[in-house]
Amino acid sequence: MEPVKLGLLGLGTVGSGTVNMFHRAGVEIERRAGRQIVVTRAAAQDLSKPRDCETRDIELTDDPMSIINDPDIQVIVELIGGYEDARDLVLAAIRQGKHVITANKAMIAKYGNEIFAEAEKHGVTVAFEAAVAGGIPIVKAIRESLVGNHIQWLAGIVNGTTNYILTQMRDEGWDFQTALDEAQRLGYAEADPTFDVEGIDAAHKLTILASIAFGVPLQFDKVYTEGIAGIGREDIQYAEELGYSIKHLAIAQKTEEGIELRVHPTLVPHRRLMANVGGVMNAVMVYGDAVGRTMYYGAGAGSEPTASAVMGDILDVVRSLSAGPDNRVPYLGFQLGSLSSVPVLPMEAIETAYYLRMEVLDSPGVMAAVTQILAELNISIEALLQKVPEPGQDTVPIIMLTHRIRERQMNEALYRIGQLEAVQGKIVRIRLEYFDE
Amino acid sequence: MEPVKLGLLGLGTVGSGTVNMFHRAGVEIERRAGRQIVVTRAAAQDLSKPRDCETRDIELTDDPMSIINDPDIQVIVELIGGYEDARDLVLAAIRQGKHVITANKAMIAKYGNEIFAEAEKHGVTVAFEAAVAGGIPIVKAIRESLVGNHIQWLAGIVNGTTNYILTQMRDEGWDFQTALDEAQRLGYAEADPTFDVEGIDAAHKLTILASIAFGVPLQFDKVYTEGIAGIGREDIQYAEELGYSIKHLAIAQKTEEGIELRVHPTLVPHRRLMANVGGVMNAVMVYGDAVGRTMYYGAGAGSEPTASAVMGDILDVVRSLSAGPDNRVPYLGFQLGSLSSVPVLPMEAIETAYYLRMEVLDSPGVMAAVTQILAELNISIEALLQKVPEPGQDTVPIIMLTHRIRERQMNEALYRIGQLEAVQGKIVRIRLEYFDE
Repeated sequence: MEPVKLGLLGLGTVGSGTVNMFHRAGVEIERRAGRQIVVTRAAAQDLSKPRDCETRDIELTDDPMSIINDPDIQVIVELIGGYEDARDLVLAAIRQGKHVITANKAMIAKYGNEIFAEAEKHGVTVAFEAAVAGGIPIVKAIRESLVGNHIQWLAGIVNGTTNYILTQMRDEGWDFQTALDEAQRLGYAEADPTFDVEGIDAAHKLTILASIAFGVPLQFDKVYTEGIAGIGREDIQYAEELGYSIKHLAIAQKTEEGIELRVHPTLVPHRRLMANVGGVMNAVMVYGDAVGRTMYYGAGAGSEPTASAVMGDILDVVRSLSAGPDNRVPYLGFQLGSLSSVPVLPMEAIETAYYLRMEVLDSPGVMAAVTQILAELNISIEALLQKVPEPGQDTVPIIMLTHRIRERQMNEALYRIGQLEAVQGKIVRIRLEYFDE
Repeated sequence: MEPVKLGLLGLGTVGSGTVNMFHRAGVEIERRAGRQIVVTRAAAQDLSKPRDCETRDIELTDDPMSIINDPDIQVIVELIGGYEDARDLVLAAIRQGKHVITANKAMIAKYGNEIFAEAEKHGVTVAFEAAVAGGIPIVKAIRESLVGNHIQWLAGIVNGTTNYILTQMRDEGWDFQTALDEAQRLGYAEADPTFDVEGIDAAHKLTILASIAFGVPLQFDKVYTEGIAGIGREDIQYAEELGYSIKHLAIAQKTEEGIELRVHPTLVPHRRLMANVGGVMNAVMVYGDAVGRTMYYGAGAGSEPTASAVMGDILDVVRSLSAGPDNRVPYLGFQLGSLSSVPVLPMEAIETAYYLRMEVLDSPGVMAAVTQILAELNISIEALLQKVPEPGQDTVPIIMLTHRIRERQMNEALYRIGQLEAVQGKIVRIRLEYFDE
């Protein structure tokens, strides 16, 4: 059989990793695929830049369209990143009848519906395992392995940068800024860390995961997104004291009323697996009605882990080359025509437990006033810590955990408590999930 | 397109779960497959027995061969279990040109080489995701997602019964027998628990995992297998005190000299994910040179979780019906002709760390004699606990952790220490793994 020829768009971190993997494991890849696969061409923005991979056998260009238009190339691997430019190239490749493999979560989350419709029209496939949680085969697990299940919820640590920062804040007692500085020094965070720290990157991934889990269209703009910059080191310490770790989770849940899509810091009990996913590692837990809880753990980013996922997609696409388009795994797990239109719930409608921390004046009656408000709103308290005042301080911190209630009630409670004169400054509110079902 | 017709052999726990899943999720399964799939016939040993599923639309028989010989049936789902009978039926089905899906780990571990060769000859596929770790999609992850990696090792909790027993011994302070009795009462352990408790079931699964990870033939008879009946509740307590949990692990590792295949109780540090896999749950950690550590967690047995894996295989097989045999995923991840023949190492050649517990006479010079033997064999001690004697006792327990050494050296050390007059009874030796790379 003829070798399959690939064209790479982008020779940065993941592109180099992919080329290196072909050099190192090419023989095994052929043994697995039963067919030779070669990268014949690659596009990079600056051809004079030194590369982290051997490019002797690859024809380089700074014009990606010349690869897309090359009739010898059957498969395009898009590793450029970003929104619009990547989309334009991918759509052009699809219109040329090329199969596409991408690691670009931002593009899929934002433009995936359009891209998949175009691919459907042209009878080609678009594979995106590397777009979610790097080397963890979570897309395949949900789309191909858990097919007999109604997925009820999933929750993941899908951003290594924020998980590294929270882990260091806990293990080293650092504040947020110190941990972020260290993450940048080690190359775990970008010079502009906004996408990671504010949860936008996690929201991209959650958008994709929710679609393949529930069979709904991609709807990035409906994800509630809260970052980790507001987490104090004292919150992490109090949470530890109460038996919890704080993790930055992306959560999708199907309820009778609709779908929850939310990214926010979350307390998780110590003994849960999710609480023990440390450093830059990622993990996704998926709850299916038949299988129960399953979890998938691994490196969520980096050159080689992401290339590992790209390579899985390459073999799938190569195998599918001789299968008909109707026999491929559907992009979002279900045939495009039969995606369902369950509504995404507003954040006020979701239900969760809460951690609250507030500074109150050390005077009689304050605790009674706070708990009175909670009682009136039917919010029951699961645990309560009141610390003695530091010498010279006239306020004390109150920390409490609540049972599960609607976010709407909690918003009302926080508003009313905030009106109390004895309560100083902003109340810290962090959501808490048990994952015990 | 014509519906695909399945025949089920076996309507017990997993068979009923599979039928129920078709009733519950049939619409979604069709949305995913783009094609209708129906169970038209099923075989059961005793037709008068009440079933845990609705069989109105299924033609029942007590003669499995009549299903295998039915020209309308394209796919046989073997859910009988056991060694020889299942093998005979599966081989007959293959010779009839049927695709086969099986949950039978014992049969695949023992007769898989023969079965795959026969399937290759007849151009049909044999799928066995449900044979390893129930609902966890570990076969697919290794065979299809981690294809760009050289897998270096894997380690798993692949038997829910032993994990339940060890978890209860830790959490409730029970001894082995009490925990086993409770497991039997809850239906987690069979009336004859030998296969689970002695590690044979885990060895079956390890055999399969090692083959797909390393591209070597199935070689069940070369697995070193040690059960959990020798673990005392005091060992679990001492291990906890030292910062470890005891887990019954199945470990496969590729070294320069060959392959290690071993099932035995193992100490694992508390903060490791593996240490937090409790109750009847399963987990497999896989280390690939590109992706690093990935882990897969979920229910390893039970009606619905196993049916979940069977259903994943059903969709894969149905999709492959229109693809050529050369384009299917190879049974063991690599094309059968190119499996490699790396030797399986004898247990004496493997390297690990150790936990030792011995009862010694409470007299001067004993500790010196023991440590002298270890020093002579270049075994260094990582931690040491010596307890004060219980009132009225003239012996004390010594517990120690060693650094990593060859099993051969440890055997020699245990022999020599056992010869010391001050050492009473049998020395308990449990292996210790860190999973820190």
